[in-house]
Amino acid sequence: MSHTLRIGIAGLGRLGQRHAEALAFRTRHCQLVAACSPVADERQYAQEHLGVARVYEDFAHLLADPGVDAVVLVTPTSLHADQTIAALQASKHVFVEKPLALNVADCERVLAVAEQHPTQVAMVGFVRRFDPSYVNAHASVAAGEIGKPFLVRSQTCDQNDEQGFFVRFAPTSGGIFMDCSVHDIDLARWLLGRPKALRAFASGTIALHPGLAEFGDVDNGLAIVEFEGGARAVFYASRTMAHGHETSTEVIGTAGKLTVGEHGARDRVIVSDASGVRHAVVKDFYERFEAAFAAEMAAFVAACRGEQALSLTLADALEATRIGLAITRSLHSGLPELV
Amino acid sequence: MSHTLRIGIAGLGRLGQRHAEALAFRTRHCQLVAACSPVADERQYAQEHLGVARVYEDFAHLLADPGVDAVVLVTPTSLHADQTIAALQASKHVFVEKPLALNVADCERVLAVAEQHPTQVAMVGFVRRFDPSYVNAHASVAAGEIGKPFLVRSQTCDQNDEQGFFVRFAPTSGGIFMDCSVHDIDLARWLLGRPKALRAFASGTIALHPGLAEFGDVDNGLAIVEFEGGARAVFYASRTMAHGHETSTEVIGTAGKLTVGEHGARDRVIVSDASGVRHAVVKDFYERFEAAFAAEMAAFVAACRGEQALSLTLADALEATRIGLAITRSLHSGLPELV
Amino acid sequence: MSHTLRIGIAGLGRLGQRHAEALAFRTRHCQLVAACSPVADERQYAQEHLGVARVYEDFAHLLADPGVDAVVLVTPTSLHADQTIAALQASKHVFVEKPLALNVADCERVLAVAEQHPTQVAMVGFVRRFDPSYVNAHASVAAGEIGKPFLVRSQTCDQNDEQGFFVRFAPTSGGIFMDCSVHDIDLARWLLGRPKALRAFASGTIALHPGLAEFGDVDNGLAIVEFEGGARAVFYASRTMAHGHETSTEVIGTAGKLTVGEHGARDRVIVSDASGVRHAVVKDFYERFEAAFAAEMAAFVAACRGEQALSLTLADALEATRIGLAITRSLHSGLPELV
Amino acid sequence: MSHTLRIGIAGLGRLGQRHAEALAFRTRHCQLVAACSPVADERQYAQEHLGVARVYEDFAHLLADPGVDAVVLVTPTSLHADQTIAALQASKHVFVEKPLALNVADCERVLAVAEQHPTQVAMVGFVRRFDPSYVNAHASVAAGEIGKPFLVRSQTCDQNDEQGFFVRFAPTSGGIFMDCSVHDIDLARWLLGRPKALRAFASGTIALHPGLAEFGDVDNGLAIVEFEGGARAVFYASRTMAHGHETSTEVIGTAGKLTVGEHGARDRVIVSDASGVRHAVVKDFYERFEAAFAAEMAAFVAACRGEQALSLTLADALEATRIGLAITRSLHSGLPELV
Repeated sequence: MSHTLRIGIAGLGRLGQRHAEALAFRTRHCQLVAACSPVADERQYAQEHLGVARVYEDFAHLLADPGVDAVVLVTPTSLHADQTIAALQASKHVFVEKPLALNVADCERVLAVAEQHPTQVAMVGFVRRFDPSYVNAHASVAAGEIGKPFLVRSQTCDQNDEQGFFVRFAPTSGGIFMDCSVHDIDLARWLLGRPKALRAFASGTIALHPGLAEFGDVDNGLAIVEFEGGARAVFYASRTMAHGHETSTEVIGTAGKLTVGEHGARDRVIVSDASGVRHAVVKDFYERFEAAFAAEMAAFVAACRGEQALSLTLADALEATRIGLAITRSLHSGLPELV
Repeated sequence: MSHTLRIGIAGLGRLGQRHAEALAFRTRHCQLVAACSPVADERQYAQEHLGVARVYEDFAHLLADPGVDAVVLVTPTSLHADQTIAALQASKHVFVEKPLALNVADCERVLAVAEQHPTQVAMVGFVRRFDPSYVNAHASVAAGEIGKPFLVRSQTCDQNDEQGFFVRFAPTSGGIFMDCSVHDIDLARWLLGRPKALRAFASGTIALHPGLAEFGDVDNGLAIVEFEGGARAVFYASRTMAHGHETSTEVIGTAGKLTVGEHGARDRVIVSDASGVRHAVVKDFYERFEAAFAAEMAAFVAACRGEQALSLTLADALEATRIGLAITRSLHSGLPELV
Repeated sequence: MSHTLRIGIAGLGRLGQRHAEALAFRTRHCQLVAACSPVADERQYAQEHLGVARVYEDFAHLLADPGVDAVVLVTPTSLHADQTIAALQASKHVFVEKPLALNVADCERVLAVAEQHPTQVAMVGFVRRFDPSYVNAHASVAAGEIGKPFLVRSQTCDQNDEQGFFVRFAPTSGGIFMDCSVHDIDLARWLLGRPKALRAFASGTIALHPGLAEFGDVDNGLAIVEFEGGARAVFYASRTMAHGHETSTEVIGTAGKLTVGEHGARDRVIVSDASGVRHAVVKDFYERFEAAFAAEMAAFVAACRGEQALSLTLADALEATRIGLAITRSLHSGLPELV
Repeated sequence: MSHTLRIGIAGLGRLGQRHAEALAFRTRHCQLVAACSPVADERQYAQEHLGVARVYEDFAHLLADPGVDAVVLVTPTSLHADQTIAALQASKHVFVEKPLALNVADCERVLAVAEQHPTQVAMVGFVRRFDPSYVNAHASVAAGEIGKPFLVRSQTCDQNDEQGFFVRFAPTSGGIFMDCSVHDIDLARWLLGRPKALRAFASGTIALHPGLAEFGDVDNGLAIVEFEGGARAVFYASRTMAHGHETSTEVIGTAGKLTVGEHGARDRVIVSDASGVRHAVVKDFYERFEAAFAAEMAAFVAACRGEQALSLTLADALEATRIGLAITRSLHSGLPELV
């Protein structure tokens, strides 16, 4: 397939705009030809800032556009499953932001439809798999450089948001593990070679945001996952870091370990002054994964064009959801839960 | 009290020799006057290398020596409780290596006797509390520099010993959590302000040493501990690191976090060569905590001489044992266990 | 100016291809419409890989193309001055790779012509000014965060090339200081606020490549530059690093210092294994400055379109050349040389 | 020689007290039996705090004490040469703080006397040679791990002292290079295998302490030294660091480089808070080299007792002085100076 991939995007909130700009200006072999949003300002932004030719208020109209080969969904999580299914049925390739869904049944519905459309790409946005550091780490593990990997420790820690946006978001986020740790879960499975998860145990605390209590959520959570064959993972998710966003992952094998991303340096600058020796920290996941977001879109386009297969599958998304839900159940029950 | 403290040491194995040399040559205001060991070579070492005047084969004879003010016990764990009690009853100050005992009843027996001897020092060797970095970290936390601490993540990871000494030691070690994590447990309590532990959950795996299975032990273990008031701790213990000994601890508060000891650098040298940019790693806990061992003996001597009170108490040792045992029970039951 | 900038590139060697790909695929508001090379393979590459419409063997034909608004020169250094002048006289904007020229007279000729074409952009490729870390460091200095800067230490150290490409290149490179340190010289002036350079002293050695001796060149060179007002700079350039490419710069002020780029980490991965704890290193300047090359092209396009002025001027390039030549004279004379 | 070495110390200022305490309490096989100071308070301190039996006001009386085997001189630099000679002639071993003297003639006088007393130890306090990190680095270089070393970059940078003690000290300090860089000079010679120094060039600036100008001194100085055979060294000395004391050294060889001490971390604690990720810095050379000062005294005692030869000789001290003086002459002349 040699022609340029024609893409329509749905959802132009903060992350949607990032994806849209990557598609419009920094991704080869594709063209952002359409955009869909219920928000008038967002449609105007698409036309004026991105130069998108056709804007739609209604998602069905985007799918009906015969000049669109692929859709990128950056819509609310509750819409992900149905929109992915509809897009597949409209013969479009689909990229959908994570999480695919907050329950297993929805994931399975999507997988069933995707199986009926084997020539179309359906990809979930586990962006960290496209970060150069994670790519290099995975390649080292796959090459056997740390022996047999048996333990992953991974964290997603956000800078504290004094406005507490995520508290308002709590009723629909699925909780801290579904919202944050789902990335770590996917990384753990990827780095450990996709072992089958058996059980999960979680514990959490509220350090700064008591408003989470009514939703059964926490602002700091820990979880241990046991895999078949002996591998283990331990996750930490936090909403309350003082220093910035720190996503890091450690994979431990019988001959060594790899650590990715600790301390979250913003750049290569070190400051030595009266406060000691220090570096600035990335402030959010987007600053940390800017290059990964671009690489992710490039991988989606390459997959749609048939140039490169994706190692990331809908089955991975289903499994990450399944594990995340078991962790969340354990947080509520106080007991280990079967995955 | 101004006179020099006269010390007798019992046990001159590897760690015993380290303590003995610190007492003989590098600690002020004390004199190593007696040594006790059932091993003839060790007694000879004490006389010839340390210049110790009086050596004993039998611990009772050491206690009967009226020229001994204090005893330092570096004997097998199974003897710790009874020897500590006997020493207190013989009117000696006592330093006993960790763990105080492998069960709660023994710890409580020691505490009961110690309460009857309030003017004598009884100290357990949680050496990390005397490491300069941990001392500085604790001072920062106590000064409120990271706000309210609510989470500790701590690990004790030993370099893999291909001879598997700890496998032979497994029947009497109490398991990986009692042997290694007991330090992390004590640090967590110290850094979090001694909250009451409620529950523990553990999970582990055998990565390299299948011989551990028959003792119900693992070579890599994870544990989560829940404290009253919301604080949490997560521990990792490993016998199988490829790169050396890496003891590290993170304490997370509402206004910042502190990380102690990560990567275990041996010194201040960085090598840049064909393998990249790297540093050497300490090979074992003694190399890591050499200065702490000396500071620990100095603190014991100062306490015996009445110059400085100890913040580290037998009650701390009892509580660390209690938590370590709950973690160990959880490893075996697969369920959270009450502390 | 709102229309897309139409660019023609001259020179499609290794670095030329990098620039061309950035222009063709990753830079907004521009289009790579033409390419010029005396090498047939390079012209074919431009057509087939970059999709360039018009290719030329002769630079004059590129300049005669009325559909070209701006030219990017990645040609041999000896051609830089004359081609820049010709392009300006053909009413094109010009980007020219560093160095502008290997002598002051050529630089001055270009400046004189540029002054006659004040509405056209003429920019020299000091790429480090566009690296995010250097941009952040410069902003900190400009904001007074380290007080008054008075010393820059800067190095350009390449991984040893056993084939010794630069030895064959030595007759025309201008020597190690003109080839490598010219970047550090420009950074020093930029970070110190463009003080006037007064004197330079240099010393060097040949560690691995004796073939350089016949050209009066060295593979490791040191230089000190004295500026009016007391500021100082010290430069180190090397061709013989074992570990990779390490470009780093330190700027020291009365209230602190900034260090950029030390140790040259390839990514955010740390490996802990039998060799210690290490990270991989970027292998060459392009891997280190990949993002900077893209930002540099974007800045050129923005300047040509009148959106953003350049702080980097031809006068800066002239001054860097003047200092580099004084350093090189000092290397040969063994005495301090006036700039 | 098996008996305990009996030591007398002369000079009990700040550094003198540090040495005295190390000798009294932390060094094996020696006893601090005598102290000499013209200051009554210092003599009282020696008696009461150190438990020294005999105190003298007059250095001649210390030398006349037949119960003193060795003297440690921590007196003003202007006295070093004559006191060292007198001590040797009184049949004492001598440790003398650096620098041995501020002129070559004085050094040579000491060497001539020392040659007449070959069985006595005469050692100059180049303490960095006893720092564990420098010891390890030197061992790596000596083992050929970085190939052939050809370049040393070394710095001694003190935290800015707003009181400007060193300004008052400037008339007698010998200048920044003799006072600070003499350590770096000695390290460079040691790490490079003692090549013969040929020429030196220096340049400096006054960033914060204009009072230095009248003494021809600077608060920030740079120097390049050329050695026979092609090796080079570059030194940086500063009195004006904002962040603390940072002594660091890089030795570059044909197969790798070693970096010692960069960033001057106080301990193993990393703080992550609103200011980023940082570590504290040692505040002065004593905090940095505390372990080295103890090791240095141990090495002196071992040498006096005939247990271990010293690799550090008076000839090294003479050569460091010779190079330091050439650097200082160059600072004043503005021209390279022969060593």
